[in-house]
Amino acid sequence: MIRLNASDPAFAHAFDELVGARREADADVSRDVRTIISAVRDDGDAAVQAFTSKFDGHDLDETGWRIERAELTAALDGLDSELRKALELARDRIAAFHEKQKPTDSETTDDVGIRLGSRWRPVASAGVYVPGGRAAYPSSVLMNALPAKVAGVPRLVMVTPTPKGEVNPLVLAAAELAGVDEVWRIGGAQAVAALAYGTKRIEPVDVVTGPGNAWVAEAKRQLYGVVGIDMVAGPSEIVVVADAKNDPEWIAADLLSQSEHDPTSQSILFADDAAFADAVADAVDRQIGTLSTKDVARTSWDANGAIILVPELAAACPLVDRLAPEHLELAVDDPDQLFTLVHHAGSVFLGRHTPEAVGDYVAGPNHVLPTGRRARFASGLSVLDYMKRTSFLSLDRAGLAEIGPAAVALATAEGLPAHAKSVALRLESK
Amino acid sequence: MIRLNASDPAFAHAFDELVGARREADADVSRDVRTIISAVRDDGDAAVQAFTSKFDGHDLDETGWRIERAELTAALDGLDSELRKALELARDRIAAFHEKQKPTDSETTDDVGIRLGSRWRPVASAGVYVPGGRAAYPSSVLMNALPAKVAGVPRLVMVTPTPKGEVNPLVLAAAELAGVDEVWRIGGAQAVAALAYGTKRIEPVDVVTGPGNAWVAEAKRQLYGVVGIDMVAGPSEIVVVADAKNDPEWIAADLLSQSEHDPTSQSILFADDAAFADAVADAVDRQIGTLSTKDVARTSWDANGAIILVPELAAACPLVDRLAPEHLELAVDDPDQLFTLVHHAGSVFLGRHTPEAVGDYVAGPNHVLPTGRRARFASGLSVLDYMKRTSFLSLDRAGLAEIGPAAVALATAEGLPAHAKSVALRLESK
Repeated sequence: MIRLNASDPAFAHAFDELVGARREADADVSRDVRTIISAVRDDGDAAVQAFTSKFDGHDLDETGWRIERAELTAALDGLDSELRKALELARDRIAAFHEKQKPTDSETTDDVGIRLGSRWRPVASAGVYVPGGRAAYPSSVLMNALPAKVAGVPRLVMVTPTPKGEVNPLVLAAAELAGVDEVWRIGGAQAVAALAYGTKRIEPVDVVTGPGNAWVAEAKRQLYGVVGIDMVAGPSEIVVVADAKNDPEWIAADLLSQSEHDPTSQSILFADDAAFADAVADAVDRQIGTLSTKDVARTSWDANGAIILVPELAAACPLVDRLAPEHLELAVDDPDQLFTLVHHAGSVFLGRHTPEAVGDYVAGPNHVLPTGRRARFASGLSVLDYMKRTSFLSLDRAGLAEIGPAAVALATAEGLPAHAKSVALRLESK
Repeated sequence: MIRLNASDPAFAHAFDELVGARREADADVSRDVRTIISAVRDDGDAAVQAFTSKFDGHDLDETGWRIERAELTAALDGLDSELRKALELARDRIAAFHEKQKPTDSETTDDVGIRLGSRWRPVASAGVYVPGGRAAYPSSVLMNALPAKVAGVPRLVMVTPTPKGEVNPLVLAAAELAGVDEVWRIGGAQAVAALAYGTKRIEPVDVVTGPGNAWVAEAKRQLYGVVGIDMVAGPSEIVVVADAKNDPEWIAADLLSQSEHDPTSQSILFADDAAFADAVADAVDRQIGTLSTKDVARTSWDANGAIILVPELAAACPLVDRLAPEHLELAVDDPDQLFTLVHHAGSVFLGRHTPEAVGDYVAGPNHVLPTGRRARFASGLSVLDYMKRTSFLSLDRAGLAEIGPAAVALATAEGLPAHAKSVALRLESK
């Protein structure tokens, strides 16, 4: 953990370094991924089976390629009732929030009688990647699958690796609750390639979303254009802006809720009170020891944590914009006032009773958010990621007479005579 | 040009081949682009200067790095008045259409008193790539720059290569009309890298859009994530669905307006009348000879053109969906009826007096559209490409008491104790 003070002469340089630090692995997986993708493209199921055998340690012909509906319902039925209620609450709230994102079609007829508009439609099929093993999160299933369902995607596919054949019942239960149509026991770059190109067994999809390791992320990047993807995700982060009226224990837990995700995660506190900052630092150190995730949390906090003292919290806002964090907590009495000063953040948690974790699970907004300063230009996952817009226009003879001559002039100036002719022929006709 | 008949037994296979044909160059430019990007990242302006010297044949220190405002206004002032009026009409109509795309912020308080919402903001800066030389189109400047201006992007940068130092006055005039803030005389992968990473002279931008050759497209793909990009564009295409009541000359010109773009462009006609299809084919052959773009148009039409006979035009719609074309003309009496049967297309041109070319220039909708079957999942360029959404939520003590326990249960089930603790501490407090 580093401590910075915005009043120090050396602060600007130290903050530049914090902003510029690359926490993403530089491992050059791109060649491996290219090989896997091209094998799946050429050899289809056989390649998928071979890579699954190699990386996940099971033979798909023995374990089965698909996880059938009966297994999903059994997983849901077998769920502890408190967990089931929690998942159902999450599903209902996430679905309700995303319903509001549904775009509306538009159509207008302008003053020269030209009809113009936009029409939105869901993609025909979407694939959701769900990691296996340690990072198999039912919440991720809901956050990826529900926006697709709300969008109206008719065919929703899930792929998830089952290392040594083992499935995660929570993930299956979440898939059933979210209304996933097909589940395949495959993962890694080979699963993304199978979804993008299709194989004999697996029909291709139009969009692939969902978190994954470096291989999965690189496969999505390489296949972007063959299919739509959600985004290139990196290590996640939280920025907490907190005054001294907060309970240091609460703020420490909020910081650690990010640190415990991954050694590359980042947690940053902006405070305007040195004693409060010290108290939070102490609380973090104390709480880490109590966590089953202490090794990860300790590594992340030590390597990437930061506490930054600012003369007043408003002064933190331009610094927050430089970081463009995935998650931003504004733990103050009047968080809306600070929120107007921040331009770049994936999701903002307003006030003292809105810990980031509540948004990870049940509040409603999506927890798939832009990381690594990408909130400068990217947005969280939404219904729009599973839809596309078709523009349309309709001119009659009079409308074309109004604007056609300008099109002819521009086409001619651009050296495109057939463009000009296609308009001119209609203008010349009686 | 190939001719297919949907009633032939061999049609399904032949159509599969048409849909699957790859018209995109397979040239492996990725290594070259990687080298260029890493040189620009490491050496900044010096690398940009060296590549410009090598690829564009001029020394930036001699020609100047920027094209100054005075040159832009001079280009606009020097424009022929008919062309200027045409560009102004295009600007006004494009801006008006894109105004309607501006998203609205949303905020609701739900039944347990939890405040949830989404806030849209423009990116802080955007870069528009404009090709130099033969394909330097003022219409592209307007189509890329205006959505950014409408979005409210405060800093709008244009890069354009000036081979041997030569600028295209039409492009400069369009930049001035569109309100571009900075113009740099650079192009290729080096320009995209300079925009993404920034150099000493050039501040980085958050989003890069605009058409370019294979190097530019690959640079955008590789830098996706460092900056936002519009899309990976490929060779463009048009599908025309036309009955026998159309003038074959009009439809031939429409097909050629795509063929003349590039040898890899594709034009496809669906017709329900064999004699009409023959007449269009004859008209295409006749018209090609009259075009200054005849070599390109001939190559494209011969290699990629297709005329497909269907028993009735409604039967063309599922085939159109398979192609998911960039442009679709429905040249029939009741185009809206066919339009409801089509799900995947970038932009649709309804009726006999709506040639695609009118949309390229002045109608209003964007002409930057998904190509190569990407309309299955992608949309045309819009104001949203220059904005991002921040979700936000605010809970009070009562709201957290409602949904917090479910978050604790799920966090615990996922093995994330600090997540659980950050909620539980608040629930336990008095």
